[in-house]
Amino acid sequence: MELDEHLRELAERVGEELDKWFPPDTRPEILARASRHLLEAGGKRLRPCLTLLSCEAVGGKVEDAIEAAAALELLHTFTLIHDDIMDRDEFRRNVKTVHTIWGEPIAIIAGDALFAKVFEALAANARRLGLTADKALDLFETVSRASFEICQGQALDMLFEGKRDVGEAEYLAMVNGKTGALMEASAKVGGLLGGGGPEQIRALADYGRLVGIAFQIRDDILGLTGNRDKFGKPIGSDIREGKRTLVVVRALEVAGPSDREKLFLALGNERATTAEIAAAIEVIKRTGAIEYAEKKAEEFVASAKSKLKVLPNSKAKELLLELADFAAKREF
Amino acid sequence: MELDEHLRELAERVGEELDKWFPPDTRPEILARASRHLLEAGGKRLRPCLTLLSCEAVGGKVEDAIEAAAALELLHTFTLIHDDIMDRDEFRRNVKTVHTIWGEPIAIIAGDALFAKVFEALAANARRLGLTADKALDLFETVSRASFEICQGQALDMLFEGKRDVGEAEYLAMVNGKTGALMEASAKVGGLLGGGGPEQIRALADYGRLVGIAFQIRDDILGLTGNRDKFGKPIGSDIREGKRTLVVVRALEVAGPSDREKLFLALGNERATTAEIAAAIEVIKRTGAIEYAEKKAEEFVASAKSKLKVLPNSKAKELLLELADFAAKREF
Repeated sequence: MELDEHLRELAERVGEELDKWFPPDTRPEILARASRHLLEAGGKRLRPCLTLLSCEAVGGKVEDAIEAAAALELLHTFTLIHDDIMDRDEFRRNVKTVHTIWGEPIAIIAGDALFAKVFEALAANARRLGLTADKALDLFETVSRASFEICQGQALDMLFEGKRDVGEAEYLAMVNGKTGALMEASAKVGGLLGGGGPEQIRALADYGRLVGIAFQIRDDILGLTGNRDKFGKPIGSDIREGKRTLVVVRALEVAGPSDREKLFLALGNERATTAEIAAAIEVIKRTGAIEYAEKKAEEFVASAKSKLKVLPNSKAKELLLELADFAAKREF
Repeated sequence: MELDEHLRELAERVGEELDKWFPPDTRPEILARASRHLLEAGGKRLRPCLTLLSCEAVGGKVEDAIEAAAALELLHTFTLIHDDIMDRDEFRRNVKTVHTIWGEPIAIIAGDALFAKVFEALAANARRLGLTADKALDLFETVSRASFEICQGQALDMLFEGKRDVGEAEYLAMVNGKTGALMEASAKVGGLLGGGGPEQIRALADYGRLVGIAFQIRDDILGLTGNRDKFGKPIGSDIREGKRTLVVVRALEVAGPSDREKLFLALGNERATTAEIAAAIEVIKRTGAIEYAEKKAEEFVASAKSKLKVLPNSKAKELLLELADFAAKREF
């Protein structure tokens, strides 16, 4: 598949750039290793790829946005490290999480260190391109505002764990912050650095946010039905942590009283047995919540794709359209 | 005292500005409250005052650097929240720490949220003043590099807790990052925004770093000999946490074997009794480590003050000189 190949190339280029921001001689060594750990574990590099494809889609070159693309992966990785602490997750990208290896204090600092580098990388990009002050500030505002929205989304995510029923609107507000904001910023930054016009940049930003929401809904589904090795983390841990994913929100809405009780037996119960988790997943499947979520994800993908109409036809645009489909259909 | 009065005025202006960056309608409410908690508990507002005085000392006005001054307090507060989690501290500025009230996950996010706002506040300042791209990028690079140095210092601080002997040079590398970097950035940003020349900005940056180190050494001393209410946190907790402060580093260097053992009995021992802590402080006092540290702090203050020779005489310069003295002599 063509998308695969092009994404792989872009991801490789991003990887080279990321290496520059945490060189092996960073001191103390433990900070360098902890900060690089998840970066080196790979991942899809979806956000930087979104930046680079968006840059190309408005007529820019990959090199126009390379530091910013790396910055968005640094930002994403920072949020993963902190989220894993909060969720007490032990695996991510098929490796142990940072706090599991180095303990919470170093994991907190490693996340902070990645966050600090985000803005240095953005400044480097702006300087190299000789951006106007106005454009450089757009860049910084876009990324800092998205960072704040991520915090809002993450706070909602934590709050919902302690709430019995969460509505679909609340769920959407949460993923909008947690995943939508960064994907929006990723696409927008690419549009900005590629020299896109205001309408193109707005379209890319909207596209990014919608793809992000679809991506998160698919993530919720894979967390229940995926293949552990492909997915990179244990199946069912969302249930144990009490995450109000769209499938859970929907299942609780439509399930009968006895099925709801089965769900609540496992939901947010750290000591839930494998059988109780399996029973909860069974209930979710029975309610049709998975098909419901799949349909929702596809709707978001369709709106995302429609946003791109304002862009001229190009290879990059085709790949962005394919990327949107991938968000809702992926198996990993 | 004149410094007091002027600092109070500046601190008040900074307080007003800080309110803008976490308005009460920020959602979710818990995030707003947790992020504002330490900001509202007061504190000396030393870093923003350093920014504003530095701005004035090169001929600028307070208003030229007000958002940046707030940004540096946001950055400082973010580091305090995360440090308190790592150190398991329960009190700060005479109030309970953020994680003690809202739990670790919300405290981690509150810190991240403050950090996110730092760059938005800087961008607002740059935009309002119509800075050139070059100057705006200087601003961002200064603050993001300092943020990274703080992480390096904090990582060393955590590592030293697990080390038996730490040399003075290692201690200095740690406080240079932990406290020096942000004070340097605070003064430098003020110089930049006030329109200072390169030599003036360099002098202010050096001054800030040296004052920062002196300030941290004084903090170490107050942590052992201060008045709990004035200082805002329990006396002796540094010992219990195993912090390698300059007084501890020095005491371990010059104490005899039996005194060293008394120190190690309390150092980093979470279950150390009040009597064991008192005995450790007694040993430290006996070694003359406190006078040694006081002298070191004064040396840093003297070098800091000498850096300001390149600045024209002004009220602000006088206050910066007084501020340097305060760093090494304060009781709170």
